Amino acid sequence: MSDQGTTVAASSAPPAPPSGPPPKVTNRGRSTDPIDSSNFDSTEVPEFEPFGLPGPRGFPPLTEFLDIFSVDMIKRQDEINKQQHHTDFFNSADLVVRRGQEFQVKITFNRPYNPAKDKFAVEFVIGTSPHFSKGTYIPVFPNKERETTWDGRIVNNSGNVVTIGVTPAANCIVGKYHMYVAVMTPFGIRRTRKDDSRNLYILFNPWAKDDAVFLDDETERQECVLNEMGIIYHGAFDDIAERTWNYGQFNYGVLDACLYIMDRAQMPITNRGDPVKVTRKASAMLNSRDDDGVLVGNWSGDYTYGVAPTSWTGSTDILISYLRSKMPVCYAQCWVYAAVFNSFLRCLGIPARVVTNYYSAHDNDGNLKTDIILEESGRIDRNRTRDSIWNYHCWNECYMSRPDLPAGFGGWQVVDATPQETSDGLYRCGPASVMAIKHGHTCYPFDAAFVFAEVNSDVVFYTRSKEGTLEPVKVNRTHVGRMVLTKAPGTTTRRDITDQYKFPEGSVEERTVLEKAEEYGCKREKSDPLPADVELVLPSLEVSIGDDFELSLEFINKSDEERNMDIYISGSVVFYTGVTSAEFLFRNPTVTVGPKKRVKELVLVEEKYYMKHLVEQANLNFIVTGKVKETGQIVSEMKVVTLHNPRLIVTVSGGGRVSEEMTATVEFTNPFNFNLEGVYVRMEGPGLMLPKLKYYSLIPAGSSLIWVEYFTPLRAGNSRVIATLDCPALRQVHGLASVNIAP
Amino acid sequence: MSDQGTTVAASSAPPAPPSGPPPKVTNRGRSTDPIDSSNFDSTEVPEFEPFGLPGPRGFPPLTEFLDIFSVDMIKRQDEINKQQHHTDFFNSADLVVRRGQEFQVKITFNRPYNPAKDKFAVEFVIGTSPHFSKGTYIPVFPNKERETTWDGRIVNNSGNVVTIGVTPAANCIVGKYHMYVAVMTPFGIRRTRKDDSRNLYILFNPWAKDDAVFLDDETERQECVLNEMGIIYHGAFDDIAERTWNYGQFNYGVLDACLYIMDRAQMPITNRGDPVKVTRKASAMLNSRDDDGVLVGNWSGDYTYGVAPTSWTGSTDILISYLRSKMPVCYAQCWVYAAVFNSFLRCLGIPARVVTNYYSAHDNDGNLKTDIILEESGRIDRNRTRDSIWNYHCWNECYMSRPDLPAGFGGWQVVDATPQETSDGLYRCGPASVMAIKHGHTCYPFDAAFVFAEVNSDVVFYTRSKEGTLEPVKVNRTHVGRMVLTKAPGTTTRRDITDQYKFPEGSVEERTVLEKAEEYGCKREKSDPLPADVELVLPSLEVSIGDDFELSLEFINKSDEERNMDIYISGSVVFYTGVTSAEFLFRNPTVTVGPKKRVKELVLVEEKYYMKHLVEQANLNFIVTGKVKETGQIVSEMKVVTLHNPRLIVTVSGGGRVSEEMTATVEFTNPFNFNLEGVYVRMEGPGLMLPKLKYYSLIPAGSSLIWVEYFTPLRAGNSRVIATLDCPALRQVHGLASVNIAP
Repeated sequence: MSDQGTTVAASSAPPAPPSGPPPKVTNRGRSTDPIDSSNFDSTEVPEFEPFGLPGPRGFPPLTEFLDIFSVDMIKRQDEINKQQHHTDFFNSADLVVRRGQEFQVKITFNRPYNPAKDKFAVEFVIGTSPHFSKGTYIPVFPNKERETTWDGRIVNNSGNVVTIGVTPAANCIVGKYHMYVAVMTPFGIRRTRKDDSRNLYILFNPWAKDDAVFLDDETERQECVLNEMGIIYHGAFDDIAERTWNYGQFNYGVLDACLYIMDRAQMPITNRGDPVKVTRKASAMLNSRDDDGVLVGNWSGDYTYGVAPTSWTGSTDILISYLRSKMPVCYAQCWVYAAVFNSFLRCLGIPARVVTNYYSAHDNDGNLKTDIILEESGRIDRNRTRDSIWNYHCWNECYMSRPDLPAGFGGWQVVDATPQETSDGLYRCGPASVMAIKHGHTCYPFDAAFVFAEVNSDVVFYTRSKEGTLEPVKVNRTHVGRMVLTKAPGTTTRRDITDQYKFPEGSVEERTVLEKAEEYGCKREKSDPLPADVELVLPSLEVSIGDDFELSLEFINKSDEERNMDIYISGSVVFYTGVTSAEFLFRNPTVTVGPKKRVKELVLVEEKYYMKHLVEQANLNFIVTGKVKETGQIVSEMKVVTLHNPRLIVTVSGGGRVSEEMTATVEFTNPFNFNLEGVYVRMEGPGLMLPKLKYYSLIPAGSSLIWVEYFTPLRAGNSRVIATLDCPALRQVHGLASVNIAP
Repeated sequence: MSDQGTTVAASSAPPAPPSGPPPKVTNRGRSTDPIDSSNFDSTEVPEFEPFGLPGPRGFPPLTEFLDIFSVDMIKRQDEINKQQHHTDFFNSADLVVRRGQEFQVKITFNRPYNPAKDKFAVEFVIGTSPHFSKGTYIPVFPNKERETTWDGRIVNNSGNVVTIGVTPAANCIVGKYHMYVAVMTPFGIRRTRKDDSRNLYILFNPWAKDDAVFLDDETERQECVLNEMGIIYHGAFDDIAERTWNYGQFNYGVLDACLYIMDRAQMPITNRGDPVKVTRKASAMLNSRDDDGVLVGNWSGDYTYGVAPTSWTGSTDILISYLRSKMPVCYAQCWVYAAVFNSFLRCLGIPARVVTNYYSAHDNDGNLKTDIILEESGRIDRNRTRDSIWNYHCWNECYMSRPDLPAGFGGWQVVDATPQETSDGLYRCGPASVMAIKHGHTCYPFDAAFVFAEVNSDVVFYTRSKEGTLEPVKVNRTHVGRMVLTKAPGTTTRRDITDQYKFPEGSVEERTVLEKAEEYGCKREKSDPLPADVELVLPSLEVSIGDDFELSLEFINKSDEERNMDIYISGSVVFYTGVTSAEFLFRNPTVTVGPKKRVKELVLVEEKYYMKHLVEQANLNFIVTGKVKETGQIVSEMKVVTLHNPRLIVTVSGGGRVSEEMTATVEFTNPFNFNLEGVYVRMEGPGLMLPKLKYYSLIPAGSSLIWVEYFTPLRAGNSRVIATLDCPALRQVHGLASVNIAP
């Protein structure tokens, strides 16, 4: 070793590594299999699978065994499978069934089937690497001789025709399968060739007791799985507006689009039977952030390169466009995310509804404080105040058991596809148990603390001193999460579900829950400044766009002394996210109120102030703050005024029966003294009409448009024709006509 | 309206939208502020901040107020701040302190400070948009006149010099701050100009009771925060090997690299005081998947374009390279991820250690089953068996309270930066409470179910029938999670911490815990096939690379009848991930054992079989399976033989005192009958020597190399010089010399 002759000399420098980016690293030593995450690529199973090596002359002729002449998937809308599985609405030529429930298949052999001698099986295959142990290859036998996860039985055996009943496991993978028929011979397995006519879709099943999405209420199931027509609430809690939406979950191509979304997310096939994983993954994929998902969010007001969020009438166009172009669709805001997510969930069979939370706290990372900073004078400091209360926010609830949580947290779960700033690294949210939110168990996955803050945050007013320190001067504990609404099942009315999220204001339970959430690390303002002895009331207002109106401020002095106040009245145009676009009004009156007296201060808000600043949802936000000179206490109140838009007039005539032609007419008159340019009008109706679009380059002031469209109803029942009008100068114009179609 | 003259005609088609990708969407209506996520960009606070408009002749002269001559941050290693804050090891010219503990700053004014008349403050600023309410702008006053989150007090006031003591809040943001001194005048605030000499780093503080990372054990703190020298265990549970690692958390530039990692992750500044969020984000960022994080994983055996994972001696080179190049560093396997993550955690002050789990179940999505598929004959079916048990796996534990979970789940938390296949969408894992894992509370975030499966999975042997169905024939409930090891604090020995992850095998608690995990949705094999009455034992072996050896199989017949077995012995070269590279040996003997007898079967494993197939960690995996002819029962056993590599001989001489030059010598002789080509030798030592590298293009068979290097110890205490040798034909060669440096 110390023999210098054989010692190796080090070269002065190692060779320079090849330049350029590092090469693609393989997974060779990391794992054997690639992850199977595509439902549309599939491997073909061989037509003949020998059990051993053939003899010297090859395999003997197999003529003595069963031969398969034809297979009937019994897939017409009016046949037993789709009727019993509540899938007859699907506009699909393939069989669509739900798991945990029997469906039937008819097989015609070359001769009668003899149960004692003949052996055959139907085999179901999904994905690119089918394995029995992964649930991606499932053989089903017509008798109980072998234990399998899906049940099989002979329903009928007459002549050469065998009807076999197959019950997929209630927790099986959801997606597009292929079915083979296989005959066992002593020499090997002989099976049908792959053929698209034997594709079938298996969905979640809210009607099956053992399914994780089982929902034991037929009215709810009819609404939250089978209803294509939705109502989404917006506006303000004291001036509620609604928008009708066509979820279109049964339209041609929508089911394929929903499966493509999971493929695009590279979601492992084996996870696709678990509604917790499916909904969590989808909440990330419905927005385009991180992963080129379905919808691009845009809150900028400039929608030149896409469709304005306010202009959509339904989900069909969006989902089909994503499936065809493989590109994110432009543009969405929260109700578009929620509506398209709802289509995805209902299409796959997960009970789902869209809910609206009025005054929704946002982007505060699960904490319970939303700050408003005032200058020492009492005037709002807009530079230092972060606007993080949305006028309203829409998300989804979906119904499922939660085996990953302790008992009691199943049921409705919040999922939200709107890209938030912080949800554990990806833009997604949920599923979070509504029960866990109500009871403050914010430690349970996923994102319960975040949703808890959206309905429970406090609004804290601080005064900022010259040195930069902040002092809390007022805490409003009831502003945020003012009301939670959803469409009532079976009707076109709304249902207040605030009590499912919170205990009543001021109750003992409410206090306990907030304390528990604090223990779990939600930060909250502890101090409780004394309320001022002067109260300020801003009454509700209903105002049409373009009108002048009067804002009335009532000051109520509860003390026994006179009170003098410097009041700051600030009126801004805001996005529905609460972000200020422009301040259009500022007043600074001094108000004097005698002991135990009331004083009204009126502010005239003229159309000319606000019209030129309006953004799409036409909300005016008034913040009134001030300081009582005698006590230094802060008086403040906030009010959102939603300007009402003109409406489209939609009328329907003729027919009124399935497959009879009818007419829909959309009428609109430009009520303004200016021209509307670049106007898109959209119309569609669940079960009535696919989305239609018309473009008008100019609607002069005072002029009208009339659009007549013919359509043929596909099915009976109540429905609506929905229309929107959208142009840069005027957004959020709706209209609808109710229709009842006879069979 | 019905006047056709004023009705607008629709143009036939809307104008085509401009082509090309959609434009960058702004956030205008979505939120007011961008998220502050950079610790290196910063805004300058103005030198003079007026309180009002200047008079007609501008501001009056401010000569009557305090003027700041100089500021001394008291930042030398031997001064009070770094000594008391356990930050004197940091090789940094800046002040480095820990939160929740007072540090001192000396300010020299133009005249003596008069507490009654003069008003000044020190201000701390971090990030690009400092706000008081976000904790990114903190003014500290020398008296209690104003409520602030950080305490300030006058420690000393003599002559023109004031020494002020500042105690950062125990939950403040961790990172790089800038300090200003501000003097209040009636006309405005006058402050020091921005100057890098007043930068300071504030870290987590395991010595502070109110800090979330408080660890009440000085021995553990010395080890898990201050020790740069680590030992990482690998090999097999019955033949443990170890590797010494230089975490290098105090080396120049490492702290900046750790902060850069959070910047690169765009982690909001406001989240950086929460160890739960910091560790979760870092577990995603330490690997390059998703986010261009620090280390590129490579298990392929081809490391041409980077450094082989086995070749690294410490973390310094990796972190500094990431900071300088802003590019992921090539390459890592699990112990490299764990080691560099450990450097990150210790550097920021979060107590951390690397642990090794022997037989770690992987990639099974939190389920408790790992499948091995046998053919009907009893032979293993390699195509259908997914290798998902790693011979060993390294992860990190870090110590912190868990306010987001119910009481009792604080303490050690598992975090893992090795990119796994499934961890809720991103390649990351944890923090998962070790206590929650032990007690089966797998519902608590983050990823507890996943880690639970890594230590608790069952190995299930199935026999596959011709028709494709699987039948469980043997369940091994003790193979996985065989032992969990970490370095014992204060010594160079190991500590078995298996009992912190699991209750004793076979105890009542163990059964209860597994049942609870199943309730939370972990899937497990229910059936419990009768064990065979023939036992198979493979004894432990210690084998040097290149040796022939004998594998002994002992069959023990516990029944009263003769047993005949067809036995399949398969020997493969495997990666440490359990993935098979090549089968090099196959035997198929028939074994007969008389009633109540034992029979030994010997298999000679010759060097020529395996040498040409070896991959870097030189593991041979033997799987023996077979079927008892009389009963049909399955006999099986698995054994990993880790081949021992030759070692480097490292010797140290001279000096032995701080700042005295010493010599380190690395010697190696090629023991093989073939040449070694493209050889890298690396050497470094905590507190002794920065990483050094030498390249030898060729070491002929039987030849030796000697490398002599000079170094100067930086500090006193026990340390080690660590060396590795690495080339494509021979990896994982280590050597070390222990050194004790006198002050």
